[in-house]
Amino acid sequence: MQDTSGRGASRRQVLAMLGKTLGGAAMYHGMASLGFAQPSTFSGPLRLDGAPKGSHVLVLGAGMAGLSAAYELRNAGYQVTVLEYNGRAGGRSWAIRGGDRYTELGGAEQVCHFAKGEYVNPGPWRIPYHHHAMLDYARRLNVPLEPFIQVNYNAYLHSTAAFGGQPQRYRTVQADYHGHVAELLAKAANAGRLDGDITAEDKDKLLESLASFGGLNKDMLYAKGFPSSDRRGFDVAPGGGLMPRAQYSAPGDRAALMRSGLWAHLAVAHQYEFQSSIFQPKHGMDQIALALYRQVRQHVQFHAKVTKIDQDARGVTVTVEDARLPGQGIRQVKGDWCVCTIPLSILSQVDVTAGPDLLAAIGAVPYAAAFKAGLQFRRRFWEQDEGIYGGISYTDQPIGRICYPPSNFQARGPAVLLGAYMFGPNAFEFSAMDTEERLREVVRQGGQIHAQYEKEFDNGVTVGWHRVPWINGCLGMWTEQARAQHYDKLCAIDNRLVLAGEHASFIGGWQEGAVLSAHDAITRLHAKARATTGKAT
Amino acid sequence: MQDTSGRGASRRQVLAMLGKTLGGAAMYHGMASLGFAQPSTFSGPLRLDGAPKGSHVLVLGAGMAGLSAAYELRNAGYQVTVLEYNGRAGGRSWAIRGGDRYTELGGAEQVCHFAKGEYVNPGPWRIPYHHHAMLDYARRLNVPLEPFIQVNYNAYLHSTAAFGGQPQRYRTVQADYHGHVAELLAKAANAGRLDGDITAEDKDKLLESLASFGGLNKDMLYAKGFPSSDRRGFDVAPGGGLMPRAQYSAPGDRAALMRSGLWAHLAVAHQYEFQSSIFQPKHGMDQIALALYRQVRQHVQFHAKVTKIDQDARGVTVTVEDARLPGQGIRQVKGDWCVCTIPLSILSQVDVTAGPDLLAAIGAVPYAAAFKAGLQFRRRFWEQDEGIYGGISYTDQPIGRICYPPSNFQARGPAVLLGAYMFGPNAFEFSAMDTEERLREVVRQGGQIHAQYEKEFDNGVTVGWHRVPWINGCLGMWTEQARAQHYDKLCAIDNRLVLAGEHASFIGGWQEGAVLSAHDAITRLHAKARATTGKAT
Repeated sequence: MQDTSGRGASRRQVLAMLGKTLGGAAMYHGMASLGFAQPSTFSGPLRLDGAPKGSHVLVLGAGMAGLSAAYELRNAGYQVTVLEYNGRAGGRSWAIRGGDRYTELGGAEQVCHFAKGEYVNPGPWRIPYHHHAMLDYARRLNVPLEPFIQVNYNAYLHSTAAFGGQPQRYRTVQADYHGHVAELLAKAANAGRLDGDITAEDKDKLLESLASFGGLNKDMLYAKGFPSSDRRGFDVAPGGGLMPRAQYSAPGDRAALMRSGLWAHLAVAHQYEFQSSIFQPKHGMDQIALALYRQVRQHVQFHAKVTKIDQDARGVTVTVEDARLPGQGIRQVKGDWCVCTIPLSILSQVDVTAGPDLLAAIGAVPYAAAFKAGLQFRRRFWEQDEGIYGGISYTDQPIGRICYPPSNFQARGPAVLLGAYMFGPNAFEFSAMDTEERLREVVRQGGQIHAQYEKEFDNGVTVGWHRVPWINGCLGMWTEQARAQHYDKLCAIDNRLVLAGEHASFIGGWQEGAVLSAHDAITRLHAKARATTGKAT
Repeated sequence: MQDTSGRGASRRQVLAMLGKTLGGAAMYHGMASLGFAQPSTFSGPLRLDGAPKGSHVLVLGAGMAGLSAAYELRNAGYQVTVLEYNGRAGGRSWAIRGGDRYTELGGAEQVCHFAKGEYVNPGPWRIPYHHHAMLDYARRLNVPLEPFIQVNYNAYLHSTAAFGGQPQRYRTVQADYHGHVAELLAKAANAGRLDGDITAEDKDKLLESLASFGGLNKDMLYAKGFPSSDRRGFDVAPGGGLMPRAQYSAPGDRAALMRSGLWAHLAVAHQYEFQSSIFQPKHGMDQIALALYRQVRQHVQFHAKVTKIDQDARGVTVTVEDARLPGQGIRQVKGDWCVCTIPLSILSQVDVTAGPDLLAAIGAVPYAAAFKAGLQFRRRFWEQDEGIYGGISYTDQPIGRICYPPSNFQARGPAVLLGAYMFGPNAFEFSAMDTEERLREVVRQGGQIHAQYEKEFDNGVTVGWHRVPWINGCLGMWTEQARAQHYDKLCAIDNRLVLAGEHASFIGGWQEGAVLSAHDAITRLHAKARATTGKAT
């Protein structure tokens, strides 16, 4: 149960493992190929028109890729049929609420007991300011957004092996890191030890900037006083009237901070995907998907498990069965074209008529394991007792982080937080437990950060993504090699079939990747449809 | 009209001036004495009880200090009478909305033409997570809060003298600053030039941390590649399917960045008062004050201009006249005790019966000038065209900054932003213009950041605080010397009179200072009232 690889942010646990196995350079390449922290290519709403009369497109999957493809194709004049395994739209764009039931691979069923209005997003949970396609759908479909709080200076950074296991405030860790770095560099500059690197004028500007950046005092030291306490906080807070006078806090030891590794969490806020401003839809991440669904609902068939995708020169035939009744309700659905957004982890198990290049690509991408837990507590003790409003605490325990709800601040009554978000071996280990045991362990570990956990815990729900029946994983794990060999072939139109989804994008694991992938796929398919004469059915 | 002292945040223009006059050390002391960036001393809701039967407290002023004093005293059993100059409660906790009229010193009247639901906060506009007393009132009185976006990586930093006057994205300035600092320090460490400062083990940890902090590549350089583009952004954004492949951006030149001074804006986010999470009440900053007002409204008399405060061994007599009709409606209001929250800039012009220590203190604190402009534009071009959702752009022009609304994201129709927030000489200069000319100049300067300004501007409202009739300034400017000499005497109870307000706190210019000051003052007054026998009236 011990793991110290998770100091970085979210899915970067996976990257940390890559880093350990392959070395730093591979890790950077891995980051690029996984599509981490990358922005969006979007130049405005898609404008397709002039669909060939009567053309019919089958869209497999009603997640963000499938829904956006169906919506845009329908708007362009195509007949569309969306076949979805689940009994709901959204796919990974999912919110679990009170009353929801979820059965994972292996048969364990969870019934969610969250209070009215509470939810957890087991899949995507944030929309950065540069995910323009997602923001555009939210705007066009009137889905209200609210700020997600990525950085909270009053949240905790926690390592079981540092500072006696005591959680440290984000504020003090960052202030001390900036202060010590600035002091070291100022000292070197003042001693002439940078003279080969910078001019005298630049040195003056550098020193001026370091005082500002690091909260250094007039002697260019990071020491107890106003500039450092203005960043890390005070021992006795200033007040009003004749309250006790403020007392400065003492900066922490540099060596202890460096060894703690807690500085690793500070970089997250600066990475492109996590930079402010960043959003969530009000009332749950599924709201954008559901808004798209409402636009095309008459074309969507739920509980349709795809077992075969056949195509020839005249059209596409998809065989489905009732997802609730294995082997039953078998039928064939025919169309002229097909946009398949089924995750590769599932599609690789489906009988697909396609060229060897596409088939090889479909089999080339393993899927990451991930685990999330939503915990309902009887009260917002993190706000009431600790002054933490939204944001994320990080820990080197397997739970990885605790994310506090960025909405309904100061509300009375129960509230749900994200109590665990982990990848790789930790995720496998947690998913191997029974559902009650998972919650007990998540609560136990979270209790190392918040003493109130045990007493205030009410109920919870967990999702181990590799046990989710319709995906068996959380996102496609492209390696640099696989990307070079297979990516273009995965995305190319194979006769009448084109793939879309986050796995067919460079923004892996993000809804934006799924949507841009769909936009690109249907733009190419539309061009081919218009250029193609003859209809299949 | 040229000013380059305003690179820091908000009221730090004033501090920059102090710094220039008195040197760096004085500046730090000045920061402490002005109460900048300081947290709150608050240990829970005030619990006073057992007011002497029939005791009557006069509260002068219905801003946050006066309202919270009246509310708590009323709850403790006192009879309270609040005398307020304006025809509304809130004082500086003020929001200007469509239909509002405001007449400044000199007689110029502005009528606000904002659309329904739009507003500007000419006074306080943020509540940090550690302003516990303010947050507590919001909670107890059911005032909903929403996140204020202090930092926006996609907003601009602008200097007329740097980068050809082109606004730079916050993201690129910060990434380049971190990257260059990390590279310089890593280079020194690797060359053994820090060996006197750190141990070999600490050096390894330092290098590891610098790669993370700065986005350095495997050669410990801040260079074009994934790690730097992951922070500063890409030239061509990654996309989906077969969209054009991503292209990294090239880091900016170190010397140009250092000389630009734009790094000075980066420190703001780390200062205690501006750290995330930070809030605003939904619908305007006056909502907390108005919620308090609703609790005590039957005790509040509006349009009551205090001209004299007299006291003797038996009680307090306050002379008021009708604020709308100078010299008319003169009357005397009597009470046993008095809590005076009138700003010192006004109180120093009032006839007060008090000891020489208090009178000297009242006269010892000059008030800062400040100027704010709220601008309504026909559409949210900053969101629609530039992907800026909330947050602040900074400029070295007199307007100082542009703050984008952190709510109603992606709404259609007009929206209001804060188009100027400046202090000192700039504020005087802008306030000297007529109201139309102010707006023209604010729009002209903002147009240097946003080309859409001229075309999309609709209407606006400006407040030059030293021309606000009931305060003649924006906040008390304590010097370290004045603080040492006068502060305790200002706060001490003088017979039956005690002062409260941000000026009687170490959290100057913040509502939290006003509230804590009031809590402290009435706690002491209550103790004295209980200890005192004999009643005045």
